[in-house]
Amino acid sequence: MSSLKNKSAFITFEGIEGSGKSTQISLLASHLEKQGLFPSVFVEPGGSKIGEQIRQILLNPSHKNMTYMTELLLYQASRSQLVETKIKPSLAVGRVVLCDRYTDSSIAYQHYGRGINKRLIEDLNTIATGGLEPDLTLVLDLPVQTALGRATKNGADRIEQEAILFHQKVAKGYRLICKQNSKRCKLIDASQAKDQVFQQILSVVEATL
Amino acid sequence: MSSLKNKSAFITFEGIEGSGKSTQISLLASHLEKQGLFPSVFVEPGGSKIGEQIRQILLNPSHKNMTYMTELLLYQASRSQLVETKIKPSLAVGRVVLCDRYTDSSIAYQHYGRGINKRLIEDLNTIATGGLEPDLTLVLDLPVQTALGRATKNGADRIEQEAILFHQKVAKGYRLICKQNSKRCKLIDASQAKDQVFQQILSVVEATL
Repeated sequence: MSSLKNKSAFITFEGIEGSGKSTQISLLASHLEKQGLFPSVFVEPGGSKIGEQIRQILLNPSHKNMTYMTELLLYQASRSQLVETKIKPSLAVGRVVLCDRYTDSSIAYQHYGRGINKRLIEDLNTIATGGLEPDLTLVLDLPVQTALGRATKNGADRIEQEAILFHQKVAKGYRLICKQNSKRCKLIDASQAKDQVFQQILSVVEATL
Repeated sequence: MSSLKNKSAFITFEGIEGSGKSTQISLLASHLEKQGLFPSVFVEPGGSKIGEQIRQILLNPSHKNMTYMTELLLYQASRSQLVETKIKPSLAVGRVVLCDRYTDSSIAYQHYGRGINKRLIEDLNTIATGGLEPDLTLVLDLPVQTALGRATKNGADRIEQEAILFHQKVAKGYRLICKQNSKRCKLIDASQAKDQVFQQILSVVEATL
């Protein structure tokens, strides 16, 4: 991939809680660094000073009366700040950007999970990102029970406390998103051991970059 | 107004910083209480536990790199929470609701002030409020220099530190909003003494309720 040192790329990671996104992003970032690239890594919600404060509001377990629309608008506010102040500047200087969650999370969680109108969320995604789409989206797929067992072993936040049924709707939503965006999105079998999952990811990333 | 004890009404107060909204809201709330009504008073951004945390992010003077779109989305997130958890329940039990800022603030500040597309803001206003419009909007109008002298005597927050030119655009925007929504919006001359301003407000409110 040495020819790619000056080529920017925007890669997003999606999947339910406990699907291993952060582990896989770390592995990919280390691998890219060994290739002489300097990837920028961001996490949604958050990734900017203002975004981190929005993240604290979103994930606070005591905010049980947060409406679905407020939640959606807060995610979009965090995303807007991240795109303008971090992602776009990184891409502009030729960086590979790895992002833990992006616009597909809003479709998966707020539409397939919560039932908010899909078109409304797509419109908000466009407003918040100025239309910036990922070059590649890796959707980590595994059984909900397996994923939640991983995610909650250190205590559950507000989102993780949601019913299993909700997470099943989200996981199903992610599979539909993959089908509907088959050129951009790749479904990764994340039920395997982390090194095997990483090999799948690496082959897709190398084919794309 | 004794016949109105069971009639809900939604009255919003708009105007630039220092136009006297909070003073006039207090006077009107006291007056309504003397009439046997129990008005609910809310302030945007904020008015709910979650909204107050969003307010702190919005008004923090150190957040100078907040993008205009992030700002707009945060205001809408606060508004969405306020409408669903406070304003609609208050109206449902027959309360008169007085609100310090509402959807017109987004048009005045983010469209006329910042230059964000008006239609986009109107769409977000509808999304955040579910289409709930005020029965009456009182727009407090006075010269920008007079208003800012009042507002900043105890130190200026992030919004108040904006250039005079910005506030002049906002004030002009408010006058346009009044013309375009002449049935709902009433322009109040807020350059007078507070008791005289209140008499203007009272005559409009009594004619409306």
